Amino acid sequence: MGSLESEFFTMSKSVDSKEFKPLDPEEFREKAHKAVDFIADYYKNIENYPVLSQVQPGYLRNRLPKTPPNTPESFDIILRDVQNDIIPGMTHWLSPNFFAFFPATVSSAAFVGEMLCNCFNAVGFNWLASPAATELEMVVMDWLATMLQLPKSFMFSGSGGGVLQSTTSESILCTLVAARDRVLEEIGVQHIGKLVVYGSDQTHSTYMKVCKIAGIHPHNIRSLPTTVEDDFSLSPRLLRKVIEADVAQGLVPLYLCATMGTTSTTAIDPIKHLANVAVDYRIWIHVDAAYGGSACICPEYRHFLEGVELVDSLSLSPHKWLLTYLDCCCLWVKNPNLIVDSLSTNPEYLKNKISESDSVVSYKDWQVGTGRKFKSLRLWLILRSYGVTNLQNHIRTDIQMAKMFERFVRSDPRFEITVPRRFSLVCFRLKQFNGFDSAYIELLNKMLLERVNSTGRVYMTHTVVGGVYLLRFAVGATLTKDCHVVAAWELIKETTDALVKECYA
Amino acid sequence: MGSLESEFFTMSKSVDSKEFKPLDPEEFREKAHKAVDFIADYYKNIENYPVLSQVQPGYLRNRLPKTPPNTPESFDIILRDVQNDIIPGMTHWLSPNFFAFFPATVSSAAFVGEMLCNCFNAVGFNWLASPAATELEMVVMDWLATMLQLPKSFMFSGSGGGVLQSTTSESILCTLVAARDRVLEEIGVQHIGKLVVYGSDQTHSTYMKVCKIAGIHPHNIRSLPTTVEDDFSLSPRLLRKVIEADVAQGLVPLYLCATMGTTSTTAIDPIKHLANVAVDYRIWIHVDAAYGGSACICPEYRHFLEGVELVDSLSLSPHKWLLTYLDCCCLWVKNPNLIVDSLSTNPEYLKNKISESDSVVSYKDWQVGTGRKFKSLRLWLILRSYGVTNLQNHIRTDIQMAKMFERFVRSDPRFEITVPRRFSLVCFRLKQFNGFDSAYIELLNKMLLERVNSTGRVYMTHTVVGGVYLLRFAVGATLTKDCHVVAAWELIKETTDALVKECYA
Repeated sequence: MGSLESEFFTMSKSVDSKEFKPLDPEEFREKAHKAVDFIADYYKNIENYPVLSQVQPGYLRNRLPKTPPNTPESFDIILRDVQNDIIPGMTHWLSPNFFAFFPATVSSAAFVGEMLCNCFNAVGFNWLASPAATELEMVVMDWLATMLQLPKSFMFSGSGGGVLQSTTSESILCTLVAARDRVLEEIGVQHIGKLVVYGSDQTHSTYMKVCKIAGIHPHNIRSLPTTVEDDFSLSPRLLRKVIEADVAQGLVPLYLCATMGTTSTTAIDPIKHLANVAVDYRIWIHVDAAYGGSACICPEYRHFLEGVELVDSLSLSPHKWLLTYLDCCCLWVKNPNLIVDSLSTNPEYLKNKISESDSVVSYKDWQVGTGRKFKSLRLWLILRSYGVTNLQNHIRTDIQMAKMFERFVRSDPRFEITVPRRFSLVCFRLKQFNGFDSAYIELLNKMLLERVNSTGRVYMTHTVVGGVYLLRFAVGATLTKDCHVVAAWELIKETTDALVKECYA
Repeated sequence: MGSLESEFFTMSKSVDSKEFKPLDPEEFREKAHKAVDFIADYYKNIENYPVLSQVQPGYLRNRLPKTPPNTPESFDIILRDVQNDIIPGMTHWLSPNFFAFFPATVSSAAFVGEMLCNCFNAVGFNWLASPAATELEMVVMDWLATMLQLPKSFMFSGSGGGVLQSTTSESILCTLVAARDRVLEEIGVQHIGKLVVYGSDQTHSTYMKVCKIAGIHPHNIRSLPTTVEDDFSLSPRLLRKVIEADVAQGLVPLYLCATMGTTSTTAIDPIKHLANVAVDYRIWIHVDAAYGGSACICPEYRHFLEGVELVDSLSLSPHKWLLTYLDCCCLWVKNPNLIVDSLSTNPEYLKNKISESDSVVSYKDWQVGTGRKFKSLRLWLILRSYGVTNLQNHIRTDIQMAKMFERFVRSDPRFEITVPRRFSLVCFRLKQFNGFDSAYIELLNKMLLERVNSTGRVYMTHTVVGGVYLLRFAVGATLTKDCHVVAAWELIKETTDALVKECYA
């Protein structure tokens, strides 16, 4: 990693500028082919790496020079450094032994889709900046809406429409601001401090952050408690009670984020019943279906979206379960005009006759930033390369594997399933035995997790719900097969055997 | 593009799930190699396409089926459709004849860097989720800070630090919220309506949008007028006057966005003098150097950042001029703790000992969303593959080409340079001649632009500053060489000849 350690400015000398061709097609071809083989080999050998990185903080900073090199280094040397310096510091999200968080799923089709997106490097802020980028996104968003059996009110072929955002956070931010501005238009901007937003204690942590970003008074962010008895889903009755108390205080209910598959346990808020409460108060209802939504391309899971016709917006992140690679979050809205009212800009230098005519969508007005990539190519490639049937079976296969793991857990009397499994996440733990108190059992669960992860053979994570520490086993990494689930369970069982033995020692 | 038009759910039949391997390494290898050749050929032949797309609204929606296919389609067929259906709808941002907006620059090194980023598909929300992703970003942000001769107060090796955002909008949003929360902490959240933010009428249009997103009262967003006499740069004297008036009214000055290279004309706000005003009022000063900042890796342009040691944050978008492909926006901040105070989340399921110990950076707390890609690989690949010297010369070469175009314009008495050229953007127009009034001259300039763009041989855009309509010729698309600038000028001249002839006809 040759580099000068300091004073590299004084070293600058003139290089014949004609020699520097950063996009020579033949050099591009050579480098990119090399990268393809490097990546294909990485995928082939991925099981050889410890799934959770074993390095210590600072490991990489200590290996790299303090300043960038003045002169070129070869791609071969850089690839060698990726292998030797970067890969040891990776937690391998694509390993078939990755059962942590939620999987970040991928596919060959999405990879080449992203290559094509980068190929064009079009900045699709408005239609003219690349008509295909705008139009394909509209088509693909309608396609996916059809697969989810969303009502026409969310589709361009109906009265709504969809847009690709990077993250759920951005989707919530854009809709929240639209909802906020609609209400402030009526009550006056000086009353921003009266606006109240609602979610549950299981709503994604980013919700509170995004509400604060949008200027919602932190005291007005309601995080309603859920209980194990309700499987950690938000109670419509409680929601009404809290809203009524707020209204009685002169506050203005604004926005509800319901979750279809929470991050901790994939709990499901009852969209229809919550919506029936919220509409009474003209609250904007958003459904965060980041993970769970993908399952609804299978008819047998579609009922989890019951009531979606009553809500204002819905987001779903295909990077979680629909094989897209990062980042890809779909947002559908019933009334795109409200988003555009809040987020539109109209600088002179972007004006053109077609956009002025309002006959086309300007996606820059549906998002926070101005610039945007040709994001829909990945989804288009996935839908066409695999077809709906394969994608449905992909969801089903993951759920089957989770069910298998669930059976393993149930077959071992030392364990319990702590929260009912909905999709492909299993929440379980060592249950109380031998009269050990709950603090000791929690400690044992923590030790079990740490020992399993430290082997590098499996990576899973934990959460705490209703005061209970539990282990999360999220099936669905793209390369995971039955055998990996079986091996993971064997490791968990053996580690438990050892732990329990130590308890009695 | 075979697809069923409706009722595809009823067609779903069980497919042997074992057949569906979305990430089979050998299939990946085959598809990705094909994509590489497709892209290399596209770059080789890019000049054959009209740079500005010639399609009409709706062209693509009309060609595509209404629903996605149920069964797989081959990659060859999809690539054929990219060629036949997508490419005609592209405005070719990477064409050497693209002189519109600002260029979106690219390189072979960045392309393979992005391939490697996607390869890992790591979700780097905190250190443990992929130590290399966090650490390389810290290293690369310090490297680039060194190249820009930023003070240590913006570097991890000093007391600050940098982070990769997607867009300038996001960079401004994060710093604005940090600034806002610091002040609200003191004056109370109920006083959010008193906060005032400052920019000029040349500040990027996203600034006003972002301020509104953050809950700044729209009446409190000051867009200070600039003048042609000041080359459209923000006047420190005017800033002080406006701030004093706000303070006198009981308002609270919060945030100033100074621009180093505005979007319309690359005007430069005097950072040092503005900062000297703003610090008197404890205003957070942000420098938006999205485009112009890259030039400052050359010592001879570094003076444009004079005073940067006085500001709180600085953003620069390498996707504009440092060959990275989209999206890549660097944000440096002096006091990362303020960002983290506003944007941190701490859900149980992301907790781990190392992050709890505060010994490592959790980049999720430096941005809006939670998930994030391994973004620094692209910049690392660029810096190492080319070295600082080549990158400096790349900047210089672009500016040389712009200077050449500027000379062409000056050599033709029908034209004028309307705003002084700073970097590689030339702002020019047909000037008044033959006693035509200014409205007619504006019309002629509009006609000139439209005719040039409609040839498909060149794409440039326009702006209006100080009430004057002018043409923008932005040099710097990665493949642009002298000959393309010469040909563009020839086309502009010939088109003008024809136009002028018609005026007299």
